[in-house]
Amino acid sequence: MSVELKRGLEGVLVAESELSHVDGEVGKLVYRGYDIEELARGASYEEVLYLLWHGALPTREELDAFAADLAAERDVDDDVLDTIQTLADAGECPMAALRTAVSMLSAYEPEVDADPEDFDATRRKGRRLTAKIPTVLAAFERARQGEEPVDPDPDLSHAGNFLYMLTGTEPDAVSEETFDMALTIHADHGLNASTFTALVIGSTMADIYSSVIGGIGALSGPLHGGANQDVMEVLYEVDESNKDPVEWVKAARDAGRRIPGFGHRVYKVKDPRAKILEEKLRDLSESSGDTKWLDYTTAIEGYLTEQGLVENGIAPNVDFYSGSVYDSMGIPMDMYTPIFAMSRVGGWIAHVVEYQEDNRLIRPRARYTGPKDASFVPIDER
Amino acid sequence: MSVELKRGLEGVLVAESELSHVDGEVGKLVYRGYDIEELARGASYEEVLYLLWHGALPTREELDAFAADLAAERDVDDDVLDTIQTLADAGECPMAALRTAVSMLSAYEPEVDADPEDFDATRRKGRRLTAKIPTVLAAFERARQGEEPVDPDPDLSHAGNFLYMLTGTEPDAVSEETFDMALTIHADHGLNASTFTALVIGSTMADIYSSVIGGIGALSGPLHGGANQDVMEVLYEVDESNKDPVEWVKAARDAGRRIPGFGHRVYKVKDPRAKILEEKLRDLSESSGDTKWLDYTTAIEGYLTEQGLVENGIAPNVDFYSGSVYDSMGIPMDMYTPIFAMSRVGGWIAHVVEYQEDNRLIRPRARYTGPKDASFVPIDER
Repeated sequence: MSVELKRGLEGVLVAESELSHVDGEVGKLVYRGYDIEELARGASYEEVLYLLWHGALPTREELDAFAADLAAERDVDDDVLDTIQTLADAGECPMAALRTAVSMLSAYEPEVDADPEDFDATRRKGRRLTAKIPTVLAAFERARQGEEPVDPDPDLSHAGNFLYMLTGTEPDAVSEETFDMALTIHADHGLNASTFTALVIGSTMADIYSSVIGGIGALSGPLHGGANQDVMEVLYEVDESNKDPVEWVKAARDAGRRIPGFGHRVYKVKDPRAKILEEKLRDLSESSGDTKWLDYTTAIEGYLTEQGLVENGIAPNVDFYSGSVYDSMGIPMDMYTPIFAMSRVGGWIAHVVEYQEDNRLIRPRARYTGPKDASFVPIDER
Repeated sequence: MSVELKRGLEGVLVAESELSHVDGEVGKLVYRGYDIEELARGASYEEVLYLLWHGALPTREELDAFAADLAAERDVDDDVLDTIQTLADAGECPMAALRTAVSMLSAYEPEVDADPEDFDATRRKGRRLTAKIPTVLAAFERARQGEEPVDPDPDLSHAGNFLYMLTGTEPDAVSEETFDMALTIHADHGLNASTFTALVIGSTMADIYSSVIGGIGALSGPLHGGANQDVMEVLYEVDESNKDPVEWVKAARDAGRRIPGFGHRVYKVKDPRAKILEEKLRDLSESSGDTKWLDYTTAIEGYLTEQGLVENGIAPNVDFYSGSVYDSMGIPMDMYTPIFAMSRVGGWIAHVVEYQEDNRLIRPRARYTGPKDASFVPIDER
């Protein structure tokens, strides 16, 4: 057979998309042409969802209506909260709990029987589940702490309300703004493995819930989500060692360890999302007066830059800063990947709808390398 | 950009596999080289699972141990049964209920923390969830009929136990044998959309539960599973019309309707799986004395063959017969796709493990067709 095997589909173009583009050489990420730094600083996560799902940045009036719809959909059925409590009691991990709870939400979806080609209905379903994911996550986190869920507050932003439901206290302005930025910068990033999963499922014209659940499943894989948790674990290790961070990193590298949070398949220079989070880590540290993580990350980045890593294209990526940002807000480490999902769901939905509007079932082939003609022998003669 | 767009990844080779091969020209399907007709007639579904997962047909001793392990894992936690009842009460459809329940099962998985590269552990996890899927499905079907679940019987086969849990009565020999064959012939079929979904998720080294849940999601799409339900709906329509089936089909085709169950992307001649089910439909009809569906399908197939469809490569596929086989066993129509999942899970697990043993993250690209440099305007100036 003359067809070439495309392992990992590397370099294969499977679709056209107007949603996001990464220029790894100059370190630029755009959503529909808008620079991620301008969006992070100038637009809320709600505006970014509108941009991704509806094709243009909203006017004030459009945003108000959209945000109100989103805020009105945050409640989840008590039966879902009961199952979340059951999952917490059984010791389930947050990504699997999220997967189960989001799957269960479809039982309460009012437009479950909508025509799969009614893309406005798909967007509304997507909006509902985007609205409910923070509620599910916060309820799960509280359930495993032995706390009752906090009802969503429709007067708070998507970011602010999540932090409020997580802690029971309204977040300060720096935390809310930082978390909103974190949601914005994680919302889309081309056809990564979870977005591609959502697309493959969506290409069968399955319900958007199935696509999102597939995305959560893929994101839970150690080769996809989870790198910011690795960075945070390293920072804690540095802290517990009582060593100078640069000395710690030297010793770790001498022992052959890779420092997580550096290097990226696409970015050859510092990830623009890392720059934004570095600033916010600075703001959070100033606001709390605790500069420990900022000091560590600055020292490590400075040392590795000096060692020539950045010059060789191994620059800080978004995960190098997001962990310490979340930790500074008191968010537990195993919630980082679920928070990634809570943001990226916006991109999953946008990609699925864009693809389904000009759909084609995604079905590659495998090269068969087994025998073609084996002789069957009944079991008692084997 | 000079790279060609591969819409739907048609013809793209993404992996090598020794699991199954379809020769559409002669109508032959093999699992690891064994002809599907020989396997269906000579091996149980348990043997086929062993073949797919472990690389060779088992000896009697190997099969006894394997089948005992599988049978011992059928029970599901009461909390999962409670959630199934909740889903049934909320009116959830069977595929979504299956997706939620399988996702929830991971909370009770004893090897949830196994190393993702411990492939024996992955096979055991796969075996556990393959064992539990029939329990989940039967409990859901009974819950929505207002009936209590029936406990699995470890002395029955995988096929026989499912029919027993569904109805509360041990199936007769013809039904058990027929259902076992139906499971065998649906267990694998190359890289279809649901198997590819499972592979993409598995390529992140995510847990096997996430792969299977993704597969269920993809299979729920109207472009993937569900065709046998369409056939059965046509047969019921024929029946309710009180017309001769051939007259009905003539009129339907004159009105531009496509008759489901004919034609296949790969098979250009009669699907070997259709031949097996046709025989079993004959057995079931003889056993019950009710030959209605057999008469209708025989008449429709005869007429369409006479009209030259089969000669032109539009031959009966597996779905043309599976619906009437399931209906003859009293299984409701919206359970056909979940039963497909209950069988295909064997193929999903086999493909994921085979792929992960020589893993590479699956990550194609999208061609960006949006603007690259849009000017951001703050919301109050839009």
